[in-house]
Amino acid sequence: MIRLRLDLAYDGTEFSGWARQPGLRTVQGVVEGALGRALRLAEPPQVTCAGRTDAGVHARGQVAHVDVEGAPDLSSLARSVRGLLPEDVWLVDISVAPEGFDARFSALSRHYRYAVCDDPQAWDPLRRGEVLLHPRALDLAAMNVAAAPLLGERDFAAVCRPREGASTIRKLLSLGWSRDATGIAEMHVSADAFCHSMVRTLVGLLVPVGESRRPQGWPAEVVALGVRDSGVQVMPAHGLVLEEVRYPDDDGLAARQAVTRSLRGS
Amino acid sequence: MIRLRLDLAYDGTEFSGWARQPGLRTVQGVVEGALGRALRLAEPPQVTCAGRTDAGVHARGQVAHVDVEGAPDLSSLARSVRGLLPEDVWLVDISVAPEGFDARFSALSRHYRYAVCDDPQAWDPLRRGEVLLHPRALDLAAMNVAAAPLLGERDFAAVCRPREGASTIRKLLSLGWSRDATGIAEMHVSADAFCHSMVRTLVGLLVPVGESRRPQGWPAEVVALGVRDSGVQVMPAHGLVLEEVRYPDDDGLAARQAVTRSLRGS
Repeated sequence: MIRLRLDLAYDGTEFSGWARQPGLRTVQGVVEGALGRALRLAEPPQVTCAGRTDAGVHARGQVAHVDVEGAPDLSSLARSVRGLLPEDVWLVDISVAPEGFDARFSALSRHYRYAVCDDPQAWDPLRRGEVLLHPRALDLAAMNVAAAPLLGERDFAAVCRPREGASTIRKLLSLGWSRDATGIAEMHVSADAFCHSMVRTLVGLLVPVGESRRPQGWPAEVVALGVRDSGVQVMPAHGLVLEEVRYPDDDGLAARQAVTRSLRGS
Repeated sequence: MIRLRLDLAYDGTEFSGWARQPGLRTVQGVVEGALGRALRLAEPPQVTCAGRTDAGVHARGQVAHVDVEGAPDLSSLARSVRGLLPEDVWLVDISVAPEGFDARFSALSRHYRYAVCDDPQAWDPLRRGEVLLHPRALDLAAMNVAAAPLLGERDFAAVCRPREGASTIRKLLSLGWSRDATGIAEMHVSADAFCHSMVRTLVGLLVPVGESRRPQGWPAEVVALGVRDSGVQVMPAHGLVLEEVRYPDDDGLAARQAVTRSLRGS
């Protein structure tokens, strides 16, 4: 068996999210199906990703892995998988994964972008699938002041959809708003990992500050309370893109694997 | 009557082009319909645009004008038109046109962009509606060498779909290829005006040079022959966007109007 790393991009509009679900069109289902056909397997292989995006969420930098028998020719496999995938999913790259690589557990951080157009003169209907049109102007400077105290390791239960038994402690590495060249407001956020609906709820915490409907200290207060506040909006999925997943370099992966093995006593 | 200037953006995918045609969904038809309803007119008004884009061609900077009775409140008219337009057309701006303004005849130049992704690792499925995926790498430097001799005023009959009685003499003001931040190849081209399918045929002349299938002098030779060459491909519409239309400033418009009046002897 060898492990392959897959770099994927997709338009999430027509998908019920990443995770395979019976009877629903999912990115995982489509990618596993294409790999199974390209590799002529009786059963589609299991593909594991770094960030299980929700329904409607897009990706330009999703990373996944799959274990396959033998040593397939990667450029012909890429061509064949690309030919089998529908037009809303793309295999950006395929490579032999380095020693110790696991798309989910080796990831050091995930980077997302949320885009909001708050200026009717900057709205571009060609980008309507990945940008939220917002009816009121946003003060990004105020939103950045409100965002700063959220950085670092803390319990984000207030902005996570609960999942039984799952921790809601995360380390928020960066969180900031800026405008792109066309005037669209973009939030770039990274963390070691995100819990369910966390990015879209962070946007929902910061937007009312940008509209001066909430004080700049409000997002930090909500997060500090540690319980979900029904007054916080989970913003629509289509403004969100998984942009990048970062991993240790190859030496770092090998070292992590050695540590894991010694902890297991193997 | 006052004349209003409309700045429009649209995703051309689901339109049979700009120009109104019975039984077809066109940008002109949709915009005239929304204006007619917003202004509570019995008949939709006539809207005249700067560049009548073909089926499938997009716009971020289309300019049009419409003549209306009275003095409507422009910000409430904009809100109401935006609410009536479908999601693939957007009214970017509406303003009272300066004296002597005609969206079509006052225009000094039209600027288009054609986007091609020639690198499978740079393909973004979120942009598939406005970028052409091309299977071979393009040498943009060679394409720019080939493009330079096409500049200036000349007969572009070789790259125009014939229209009875219409001139094919145009002044090409700029034509160049570059890569955007994500690696996508973009041709930016401007002219005083373009004849039918001219931009997409210019792309079809230059792409074979970028693939080294044709010598760098070939595009200029084809244009110099002055007859349509069936070996030249008209590239797909979806890579093309009308980005901008330029007009004289207000003094320039008034001066042009004075000249036109004196030529007419009025």
